[in-house]
Amino acid sequence: MNSTIAKSARLRSTPFTQRIEEYGVQSYTVYNHMLLPASFHGAIDDYNHLKENVQVWDVSVERQVQIKGPDADYLTQLITCRDLSNAKDHLCYYAPIVDDQGKILNDPLIMKVHPDTWWVSIADTDILLYAKGIAIGKNLDVEITEPNVNPLAVQGPKSFELMRRVFGEEILNLKFFHFKRYNFQDHQFLIARSGWSKQGGFEIYVDHDEIGLQLFDKLIEKGKDLKVRPGCPNLIERIESGLLSYGNDMDMNDTPLECNLDSFVSFNPDIEYLGKAALQKQKDQGVSRSLIGLVLDLDEISVTQYIPIKKDGHLIGSLRSACYSPEFNKCLGIAMVDKSYQSLEQNLSLEINGNEISAKMTNLPFQK
Amino acid sequence: MNSTIAKSARLRSTPFTQRIEEYGVQSYTVYNHMLLPASFHGAIDDYNHLKENVQVWDVSVERQVQIKGPDADYLTQLITCRDLSNAKDHLCYYAPIVDDQGKILNDPLIMKVHPDTWWVSIADTDILLYAKGIAIGKNLDVEITEPNVNPLAVQGPKSFELMRRVFGEEILNLKFFHFKRYNFQDHQFLIARSGWSKQGGFEIYVDHDEIGLQLFDKLIEKGKDLKVRPGCPNLIERIESGLLSYGNDMDMNDTPLECNLDSFVSFNPDIEYLGKAALQKQKDQGVSRSLIGLVLDLDEISVTQYIPIKKDGHLIGSLRSACYSPEFNKCLGIAMVDKSYQSLEQNLSLEINGNEISAKMTNLPFQK
Repeated sequence: MNSTIAKSARLRSTPFTQRIEEYGVQSYTVYNHMLLPASFHGAIDDYNHLKENVQVWDVSVERQVQIKGPDADYLTQLITCRDLSNAKDHLCYYAPIVDDQGKILNDPLIMKVHPDTWWVSIADTDILLYAKGIAIGKNLDVEITEPNVNPLAVQGPKSFELMRRVFGEEILNLKFFHFKRYNFQDHQFLIARSGWSKQGGFEIYVDHDEIGLQLFDKLIEKGKDLKVRPGCPNLIERIESGLLSYGNDMDMNDTPLECNLDSFVSFNPDIEYLGKAALQKQKDQGVSRSLIGLVLDLDEISVTQYIPIKKDGHLIGSLRSACYSPEFNKCLGIAMVDKSYQSLEQNLSLEINGNEISAKMTNLPFQK
Repeated sequence: MNSTIAKSARLRSTPFTQRIEEYGVQSYTVYNHMLLPASFHGAIDDYNHLKENVQVWDVSVERQVQIKGPDADYLTQLITCRDLSNAKDHLCYYAPIVDDQGKILNDPLIMKVHPDTWWVSIADTDILLYAKGIAIGKNLDVEITEPNVNPLAVQGPKSFELMRRVFGEEILNLKFFHFKRYNFQDHQFLIARSGWSKQGGFEIYVDHDEIGLQLFDKLIEKGKDLKVRPGCPNLIERIESGLLSYGNDMDMNDTPLECNLDSFVSFNPDIEYLGKAALQKQKDQGVSRSLIGLVLDLDEISVTQYIPIKKDGHLIGSLRSACYSPEFNKCLGIAMVDKSYQSLEQNLSLEINGNEISAKMTNLPFQK
């Protein structure tokens, strides 16, 4: 059933909310205590448009936790299992945040934006409070704040042409997961070649509300013939692309190793981070469960909470996200499944929501 | 405009969500990463019903941060400015959570549920991560978890009769802000005489999903002639009653003293908590701004973000919550206003949303 969202100041609006509503946003989700558009023309229409054209996304909800000061390097490394010891000031690092048991608390991009200043561009948990707690507990010399930064993402195959028109040729030299500052209306915006789709694009870290709105309007204006429109992260596209969503596919009961994030877990003896010993132990023993893809013989599916998966009556895991995929003409799911029950690429019968369903397990990301 | 809410596992459902939807929930908000019903029959109808009858609220979103272990007393006191040194294991304590600068991070009820175990019944921020950060930083011997507890509130003038029918006469002896365990279907539920309305009532800390659903159904069944129905916290009732909402009326830029919470800020020299020195200093100097009530000559108002308030062209504060009040036949607002511009009970002209509005400032809670 379709319930409406009850707005209040607690579910923060963004500098772009008014525009987004003028352009007819259909639904919202809430992310970091803030409104995130969830559809404009329906999931399938938005999906098709994203894969062919270019969209401008209000992803202000990607809040920055700014960690600044003499102990900023130490604290930022302490909370992530990714090795940041040689972090460059022009690269984005996908970096799981972990606790002292190695459990994952968030999966942000981290950027060293100035010599003593980091931005942790967070998924949907209050990492500011976690960082603050550790800084207080360890008496660290850092300032932890949430600056007024409200990212816009420009996503889709035509994003390159649109960004070129607005920021000039130079933007096309920006490599994947690199960032740099570019000029618009005499203001320097930090722009990364990144974004939560696999259709290509950029994220603009808007730190000036008024010029940000002018930028939004300029992107729409300059992209008319490219069929630009406002958009948002798309469930179907992100599942087809195997992009994980914290809070959906993983939560604080999981470790990065169980989520196939091994390449972001460092055991460099020269770095110190929370949960390293626990993760080392799990690495040595091997994980007993992990995230896999499921290809399901179904025409539709909707997941609004973890759904238990059974095989021959045994509980073997949980389905965490799923959608109908036009690309595969089946339903795709992301599931946490016991290792001992994983049999990739076999035809299986799984019990999901009480129904026996023909399914295949597969590695992520999905391959056609 | 009415946008729908896009559901996903990340916006957690509760054990009661299915029932709530069967009973026709109209709108949701999101609170602690979970669905909170926001209306069933419209704000005014829900309000009138609540003030005359009894409602059963799914307030599962009131998550418990459980702090347990040898250092639990120390940590729980450390994060709140309320003096918990003599906390009784049958009383609820409204206790602002503060950081080392004395800023308010949350405003939970805290209960000592066992000799070494506290429940911090939180408003909408991840206090679990804050507590975890401090515990890690200080190397404390505590376990911090979110137990599977999903509170139901029974609110309204007829809540006493309904609870008597379900739990027996004894429940009527429970005093305000006391808690005790009561039997239902051979299960002991912790029940407090509390709730986020001023219409009287109880909160049942449901720690068993299945028996909890039976309890929900029993409350509805036994309350038929009392006109019971599912409900939810009501914007109008809570503003008329002067109940503050974290994230709406106050946020982490405010201190408890600026929010008139002086009686919950202890300067007992025998206790240690974060931000005590900062709060002592502010207490000595006096606050420069504080929350007040506004009575506005308007027929309707909707606040979805902080609205600047000007007087004679000067910015004097921000309106944070507001609604039309049937009781006052005017609009009531809760605002943070500079002390130097506070002139209580005078007729004023204030600029709100660009309009000059006749208004009166008044202490909270509002008095007729």
